[in-house]
Amino acid sequence: MTGRLVIAGLGPGADALVTPEVSAALAEATDVIGYTPYVARVAERPGLVRHPSGNRVEMDRSQHALALAAEGRRVVVVSSGDPGVFAMAAAVFEAVEAGPDHWRALDIRVLPGITAMLAAAARAGAPLGHDFCAINLSDNLKPRALVEKRLRLAVEADFAMAFYNPRSASRPEGFERTLSLLSGLCRDDRPVIFARAVSTPDEEIRVVPLSRCRADMADMRTVVIVGSSATRIIERDGPPIVYTPRSAPA
Amino acid sequence: MTGRLVIAGLGPGADALVTPEVSAALAEATDVIGYTPYVARVAERPGLVRHPSGNRVEMDRSQHALALAAEGRRVVVVSSGDPGVFAMAAAVFEAVEAGPDHWRALDIRVLPGITAMLAAAARAGAPLGHDFCAINLSDNLKPRALVEKRLRLAVEADFAMAFYNPRSASRPEGFERTLSLLSGLCRDDRPVIFARAVSTPDEEIRVVPLSRCRADMADMRTVVIVGSSATRIIERDGPPIVYTPRSAPA
Repeated sequence: MTGRLVIAGLGPGADALVTPEVSAALAEATDVIGYTPYVARVAERPGLVRHPSGNRVEMDRSQHALALAAEGRRVVVVSSGDPGVFAMAAAVFEAVEAGPDHWRALDIRVLPGITAMLAAAARAGAPLGHDFCAINLSDNLKPRALVEKRLRLAVEADFAMAFYNPRSASRPEGFERTLSLLSGLCRDDRPVIFARAVSTPDEEIRVVPLSRCRADMADMRTVVIVGSSATRIIERDGPPIVYTPRSAPA
Repeated sequence: MTGRLVIAGLGPGADALVTPEVSAALAEATDVIGYTPYVARVAERPGLVRHPSGNRVEMDRSQHALALAAEGRRVVVVSSGDPGVFAMAAAVFEAVEAGPDHWRALDIRVLPGITAMLAAAARAGAPLGHDFCAINLSDNLKPRALVEKRLRLAVEADFAMAFYNPRSASRPEGFERTLSLLSGLCRDDRPVIFARAVSTPDEEIRVVPLSRCRADMADMRTVVIVGSSATRIIERDGPPIVYTPRSAPA
């Protein structure tokens, strides 16, 4: 039997946002590996071994998955959202590069998913309808100075910005500093979207002008989208529509 | 009967990448509207009217869709990829903002899809595994100077970069200038991915160092991903893996 490793994106939460390609890979898997809440989204069935693990053990998890695939198992590593966006795909390839040569010969596939910023953008309107960037605000994996440099340059480029992992429980002051930096660079009325747990029963979408944003509006289940200088709000009964026009004036 | 308007992402091409949410919306639609090749992806059935139209008529198409929804029809506007990324969602909201007040009261929903850059990234490995940006290189809708300013700042921020609409038939020299600008700012071996028609029978993925890129490696069905300075290539038998590590050194 030839093993293989699939790194699959489960999307932001709802089953209706899981692609048929990912569902088919899960149906054929012998082993599902991932962070406990994501593994819990895959139903138990005979012939399937589920391997839940904690957050922050991405390298152990990747090595485990590669070792099982090398033994001939059909392994699916599950990520939320898209596995290629601040998720498990890069971790698995770091493990491949550092690991034994035969891991490079494995059949490894990445199956894309609906990433949080696009699910959030869809709920709010089309805030990422023009050029944009995606920044992981966590300073676990990079120096805070690099985060701030990127924020400044992104504002100068007038990108809309999507922030992943805006606020960690251990270092909540980082997001305060991000908001304060943005306040010094952008107009008070720049629209900011706080999108929490999109497509789950806990979903909450808030649209707040920059001057009224508070750091505690975000937690680790929130993706934050900051409009560009061109982003517009359409007021109406019910939640406003936030969108960024396709064209930029000359 | 209450009309509604859904703006749905069909993903990059394969049916296995269409979310169940989008399939359900199409199954309930009375009218499907969009660019001819996207409408052609929706099977004919009794009770469904298909309204194909040409490229570059996004505003007419948006107004038509809104007018039908206002008449009580269940309308789906189809986009390829994700409708919020350089696609139909922003166009529809531009039409809403400029249109009659009663359009704001319509039930309008955006259903996300797998956007081209994420499908392309998945095929190549995980080149967007760290901070990145997405830039529409078409200068139909913005001045070329703004494109170039964003390219310079994106390189300075050391984002990986995804380029949509890299090369138009009418102005092919734009992408040559982009490559030449990048060559002046980045090392020769910066990995570039040309991903054409991902997930379709015409799929082609090429990984080329920046110094060997030629503008004619891209066409309008290509998304181009340029790695950051940290992006790595894992050589092996078969196509190389391109990925950007999760962490940046202090």
